[in-house]
Amino acid sequence: MALATDLAAWLKLSLVPGLHGDGLRKLLAAFGDPERVLAASRTELSRHVGAATAAAIQDSRGDAALADAAAWLEEPGNHVVTLADAAYPRRLLEIPDPPALLYVKGRLELLAHPALAVVGSRQATAQGLINAESFARAFSDGGLTVVSGLALGIDAAAHRGGLAGAASSVAVLGTGADIVYPARNRELAHELAARGALMSEFPLGTRPLPDHFPRRNRLISGLALGCLVVEAAADSGSLITARLAAEQGREVFAIPGSIHSPLAKGCHALIKQGAKLVESAGDVLEELRLPAAAARARPEDTVNDPRAAALLAVLGHDPGDADTLAARCGLSAAETAALLTQLELDSRIAALPGGLFQRLHR
Amino acid sequence: MALATDLAAWLKLSLVPGLHGDGLRKLLAAFGDPERVLAASRTELSRHVGAATAAAIQDSRGDAALADAAAWLEEPGNHVVTLADAAYPRRLLEIPDPPALLYVKGRLELLAHPALAVVGSRQATAQGLINAESFARAFSDGGLTVVSGLALGIDAAAHRGGLAGAASSVAVLGTGADIVYPARNRELAHELAARGALMSEFPLGTRPLPDHFPRRNRLISGLALGCLVVEAAADSGSLITARLAAEQGREVFAIPGSIHSPLAKGCHALIKQGAKLVESAGDVLEELRLPAAAARARPEDTVNDPRAAALLAVLGHDPGDADTLAARCGLSAAETAALLTQLELDSRIAALPGGLFQRLHR
Repeated sequence: MALATDLAAWLKLSLVPGLHGDGLRKLLAAFGDPERVLAASRTELSRHVGAATAAAIQDSRGDAALADAAAWLEEPGNHVVTLADAAYPRRLLEIPDPPALLYVKGRLELLAHPALAVVGSRQATAQGLINAESFARAFSDGGLTVVSGLALGIDAAAHRGGLAGAASSVAVLGTGADIVYPARNRELAHELAARGALMSEFPLGTRPLPDHFPRRNRLISGLALGCLVVEAAADSGSLITARLAAEQGREVFAIPGSIHSPLAKGCHALIKQGAKLVESAGDVLEELRLPAAAARARPEDTVNDPRAAALLAVLGHDPGDADTLAARCGLSAAETAALLTQLELDSRIAALPGGLFQRLHR
Repeated sequence: MALATDLAAWLKLSLVPGLHGDGLRKLLAAFGDPERVLAASRTELSRHVGAATAAAIQDSRGDAALADAAAWLEEPGNHVVTLADAAYPRRLLEIPDPPALLYVKGRLELLAHPALAVVGSRQATAQGLINAESFARAFSDGGLTVVSGLALGIDAAAHRGGLAGAASSVAVLGTGADIVYPARNRELAHELAARGALMSEFPLGTRPLPDHFPRRNRLISGLALGCLVVEAAADSGSLITARLAAEQGREVFAIPGSIHSPLAKGCHALIKQGAKLVESAGDVLEELRLPAAAARARPEDTVNDPRAAALLAVLGHDPGDADTLAARCGLSAAETAALLTQLELDSRIAALPGGLFQRLHR
């Protein structure tokens, strides 16, 4: 299927080497639309962009890339949205450097929903991953689409939580929308394409180049009303997203942790700089003046087996071994082992090295 | 030895039942000094305080209490300081309700030093106690006398840290200055009397009545430039001290923790209300514009035995058992056991139930 003439012009212009946001927006302002830009003479173009870029515009053919885009758009759920489209996310128009063109895979309408960015470390702790997923689910149920960057660790957990809730999740990519990076998130990317969305400003086929990710971060924060950092080391890339969020006038939120945990340092630095300390998803919903989601029955509150409940109670907040727990509960070793296995399967506790068990908080 | 006439008058007035701060300060303003108050007629007194209090002033003898005070003052290191004395702590004059009279045991001059209140839960965690003691020591070495309330838990650890540093520590009591409460802190109280100070506004012999402690808290914050809360549950009494500190215009500081730790809830509530998040003693010294103490060689950085250093490194921030650690280090079981014992004696690690070891952060 051939592309509509105007969309072809948008794509062609977006593929001109060396023509980036600023220059492109200047040309659109001067000439009105991409077709008129492409029809302009080199002299006319040179009034607004450098001579090299003007030449590149006139030399641009991009026929192969255009054919690729046309083929990609044939697949169900794939979209290209331009600055001129009504579907272009309004919040991105508020940022200083909105992309001319967005490739979107999945539910386009999600880009217009109230959203929250949830980001953090790739090397997260087990508790950090649980926090990211459970907070994200509560945001999603509270009406906020969860935006993140499809990285391993906190990003992936945030997407999973968002998908599990009512308002789903959007991943903003540092690659072309036809590429999954990192490969370990392939299944998650398929889930997002089916029930959420993936979005990229980069041409199809763009590989994961390091400088794409910081640039991509402005769209993660730009799509959202605010940005929550779950776990971040002092030099974490998620602090870039938080800084961009603040510069874009978005609220910045951070979850604190032990002063001895390297993965809390970034969050603490943000709080010192004015980010809001967050202990629960409700803290964020309240700050954004959204009603908290109707309280779900929390799994923690609904252990049916009173022996399992007693075991959780004696476990408390410190690691404990099976023998000690059995003695504290007055249960046999066999009963205790069975209950611990069930609690572990239910993700209520985690096994630590050395035969210890640690309670997990959801 | 007989008391000086003017001190006897101060003590006598301070012992009148029902005559508290406000009334006493009104009378002093009206009559000039305690001797003139005691010489005034009931009619004259009734112009400033209620009839019952005026009668109580005239009926007051307090001879036995005066004799007790005289005997107490005979002991070396014991002092009574009145509002009229040059030694009365200047910062207490800034608060709305300074006591007329202070009983001080120990180094009176410490009350005039720059000071920081360090308070927190009686039921603290092992890491909370370590934090309190190591922060307090750094404050003390940085020139801040550490003020706290001689309670179990964080208070006691703060006093110990203050005593270990250069600027010592002051305990403000909710009992008479001749009583140690709780009894388990007897040895600490003796240390404070010898190398720091104990201070009370309550008459000698006053038992630990529950309502004395919140009232006492205004003096803990009042003596200090700021107040650091180390660990506090959501309903902790140390939040009263922090609130009073804020009302008195003192800086409030709090150490964050896991959002799943009940003992971090009080600190997080304070940070949400505007308290400064603190990750290190340097954060506080910097905020108060005091030069940080010359960096001491931190014990963590100076493990001499390279095998012990390697063991600490592989232990990381999670609990680990001896077998796993031995395998990671390539050490024999016997070597590992010996190193773990030494590290435990050096308080570099703590043994957990189930044969696990956890690194301690100083």
